[in-house]
Amino acid sequence: MSDLLIRNIRPMGGAAADLLIRDGRIAAIGAALSATGVAVEDGQGAIAIPTLVDAHTHLDKTTWGMGWYKGRKGGSLQDLIDNERNARIPLGLDVHRQSMRHALQLIANGTGHIRSHVDVDHDHKLTLLEGKLRTREALRGAVDIQIVAFPQSGLMIRPGVYDLLDEALAMGADVVGGLDPSSMDRDPKASLDAIFRLAEKHGKPIDIHLHEYGELGAFTLEEIIARTRAHGMQGKVGVSHCFCLGAPNPHRVGPLMEQVAREDIRIFTTGHPSAEVPSLQDMRAAGIKVGLGCDGIRDTWGPWGQPDMLHRARIVGMKNRMRRDDELELLLDAASRGGAEAMGIEARGLVVGAAGDLTLVAGETLAHAVVEEAPRPLVVKGGRVVARNGSLALAGITMP
Amino acid sequence: MSDLLIRNIRPMGGAAADLLIRDGRIAAIGAALSATGVAVEDGQGAIAIPTLVDAHTHLDKTTWGMGWYKGRKGGSLQDLIDNERNARIPLGLDVHRQSMRHALQLIANGTGHIRSHVDVDHDHKLTLLEGKLRTREALRGAVDIQIVAFPQSGLMIRPGVYDLLDEALAMGADVVGGLDPSSMDRDPKASLDAIFRLAEKHGKPIDIHLHEYGELGAFTLEEIIARTRAHGMQGKVGVSHCFCLGAPNPHRVGPLMEQVAREDIRIFTTGHPSAEVPSLQDMRAAGIKVGLGCDGIRDTWGPWGQPDMLHRARIVGMKNRMRRDDELELLLDAASRGGAEAMGIEARGLVVGAAGDLTLVAGETLAHAVVEEAPRPLVVKGGRVVARNGSLALAGITMP
Repeated sequence: MSDLLIRNIRPMGGAAADLLIRDGRIAAIGAALSATGVAVEDGQGAIAIPTLVDAHTHLDKTTWGMGWYKGRKGGSLQDLIDNERNARIPLGLDVHRQSMRHALQLIANGTGHIRSHVDVDHDHKLTLLEGKLRTREALRGAVDIQIVAFPQSGLMIRPGVYDLLDEALAMGADVVGGLDPSSMDRDPKASLDAIFRLAEKHGKPIDIHLHEYGELGAFTLEEIIARTRAHGMQGKVGVSHCFCLGAPNPHRVGPLMEQVAREDIRIFTTGHPSAEVPSLQDMRAAGIKVGLGCDGIRDTWGPWGQPDMLHRARIVGMKNRMRRDDELELLLDAASRGGAEAMGIEARGLVVGAAGDLTLVAGETLAHAVVEEAPRPLVVKGGRVVARNGSLALAGITMP
Repeated sequence: MSDLLIRNIRPMGGAAADLLIRDGRIAAIGAALSATGVAVEDGQGAIAIPTLVDAHTHLDKTTWGMGWYKGRKGGSLQDLIDNERNARIPLGLDVHRQSMRHALQLIANGTGHIRSHVDVDHDHKLTLLEGKLRTREALRGAVDIQIVAFPQSGLMIRPGVYDLLDEALAMGADVVGGLDPSSMDRDPKASLDAIFRLAEKHGKPIDIHLHEYGELGAFTLEEIIARTRAHGMQGKVGVSHCFCLGAPNPHRVGPLMEQVAREDIRIFTTGHPSAEVPSLQDMRAAGIKVGLGCDGIRDTWGPWGQPDMLHRARIVGMKNRMRRDDELELLLDAASRGGAEAMGIEARGLVVGAAGDLTLVAGETLAHAVVEEAPRPLVVKGGRVVARNGSLALAGITMP
C-alpha cells in the first residue's frame, strides 16, 4: 500500500483536480493539494476512472504470446471442450506462464480486478489451479484475482470432479463454478444441489456458466433463483452468459430479470457476438448488478479477443446498440466500478476513502474514452503505479 | 502506373518469393527476380495479399478527426436519418475534408478499393456528392472509389429526389442507390421501378440498402430478384445489409439465397453486431459474391467503427462464429479479392497479369494475419507505394 499524489486529472471527466492516495486509499481530491514525501505524477488533464474490471475470463486457456495455433475446430460445445482438454499438453500450454501473460496485458490496459475461471477435470486435476495460484501470488498488489473452480468438462457426468472442486476450494479457489446444469450435466437438480452444497461448506460464492438458451435456460435459471432464496445466498450467486435472458420475448424475460434482481443474483456478460445476450441496459434498469468480461482470449476455442476491457466494452456496446453518450457512460461503468460491485468488491468509485485504484483514459469525455480505446496513460493500484502508456511499470516483473 | 520490385514476400502465405510490377500490373512472381531501373522494396518475409476492399461505407458521414460529437440519438431509423440531416451544417461537417480523412485512413490500412454511398436529398442536393468527387479525384491512383448516389432520406416519399439522383449519375456517380423500398419508401413497386429505370438510362449498376427484416425484407428482395431477371441485369445489382437473409428459418432463407446466386446479385454485409445478418459462410457456399464493409465510422448515427477492413473482418468473423483457419481465410478473401469481385472489379488475386495492388500483412499465416490486425507493413497500388507501417506515404498528400 503506497502513497501517491496525482496532479491535474479529471475524475470521471469532471473538472481538473489533484488526487492524493495515502496508505493505498484515496485521502483527498481537490485543487492544488500539497503533500510532502510523496511520489508525484502529472496526469496532464486526462480523465481518471476506477480501474477496469474483467469479471469473466479464463486465464488458464490463452495461447497469447505463443505461436499461432492452427488446430481450432467447429462443432458443438462438447467438441470444443474435448479439443481443448486434448490439446493442452501437446501444445505446451503452461498455465502459470500463460496466465501471467494474460493478466499482465490486462494490467497494462488498466485492469485492477479479474475474475478468472480455472478448469478442474480428471485429466488435469488441480494442476491448472496450481499454476494460476502462483500467478495470483506473483501479481499480488498489482491486480486482484478471484479464482473460480470451474468444472469445464462437467460435474455430474464426471464422477470424482465434485471431490476435485472441494479440494480446489480448500486450496484457495474463491468461487464455486458450474456449467450448464441441464444441457451439460444432464441432471440439473443434482448438479445445482452439489454446487450450492460446496458453496455452503466453504462459505464461498457461486458463479455458474449458463449457455442454455430459451426455455431450457429459463428453467435452469429458475432453479438457481429458487436455491439462492432457499439458501439465503442473496448477493452471493452469479450467472455467467445467461443467454436465456437474451431471448426475444419480453414477457418471459422481464419477470425473470425481476426475480434475478430481487435475489441479487449477479450477471456476467461478454456481449457474445454470435449469441443472443441479455440487454445490458435492461438488466441495469431492472436493478441487476452486471459485470463484463473478455472471456477466452485467443485460446483453443477461438482466435478472437483482446486482453483489454475497453476492447470488450466496444463489443458489448455494439452488441447492445449503444450510441448515445449516456449509454457509453453506463457501459464504461459496467466495465469498471459496476463490474467490481458485481464481483462482491467494494466499489464506491473515485471518492475519499475508496481504494486507491484508478486508471487514466484518453479522450475528451467518458463516452469518447470508451470508444477511443487508446493506451491508458497511467494505471494505479493501491497507490502504486503499475503501468504507463500501455506498458507495464512493475519492478521485477517482465512479460514472460 | 509504376514499376516496383518487392523482394522476399510470401504471396497468400505461401513460399517466399519476389514480385515484380511493371506498368502497374504484376509482371512476374518468382525467386531472385532481377530488374533494372526499378524501385526495390524489402518485404522482410511478410505475407502479401491483394489490397483490402471496403465495399460498403459512407465517406460523407464521418466525424473522424473532429471533436467528440455529443449529439447522438436513439430511436427509429427515421430519427437517426433526421438527426444527421439536421446536424451536418451546425457541425461544420465538410464532406471533402472528412471523406479525405476517412479514405486516407483506409489507404494507410491497406485498402485499394472503396464503394461509398453519398447522401442525395433536398437539404443538401448534390453538394455532398461534389465534395466526394473532389476526394475521388485527389486520391486517383492511390485508391479507387466507386460512388453510389444514395437517397438516404427517401426517394418516393421525397418528390424531386429522383431528378437529383439522375443528375448525380450524370455528374459522375457510378452506382444507383436505394433505401428500403417498402419500409422507407412505402411503395416498393414504384421505388424499384424508379431505381431500375435510372440504372438502365445511365447504364450503371445498382446497390440498394435493404434493412427490412423477415418477410417484408424477403418480399422486397423477391421484387429485386424479379427485376434483375427481367432487365437482364445479372451481375449488376447489389443489395447491402439484406438482413432478411439472416432470418433463422433455413427453409425460407436457403431458396432465397439460391435465387440471389442464380441472378448473380451481390450482397454487401457489415456483420452488424446488433442485427440478424446473413451468414457469410452460407452465402459463399451458395455461390453468392459477397463484399464486406466498414459502414459508417464514428458519425452522427453511432460512435463505433474504425476505418480498417481488418477491424471490420474481426466484427464479421466474430458475428459469424468463425474459429477455424479455413474460415479465417475465407473471411480475409471476402475482405479483399472477394469484395472487389462483388463490386464488379477484376479480382484475380496475386497472379501475373493482375493489377499491381497488394498489401503486406503481419502474421505467421493468413488466419493469424486477419486476427492480429497489426499495422500493414507496406501498401502498394498500381505499383506505387502508398503507405508504410500504418502511415501514409503519398507525396504531396497529408492527413487534413
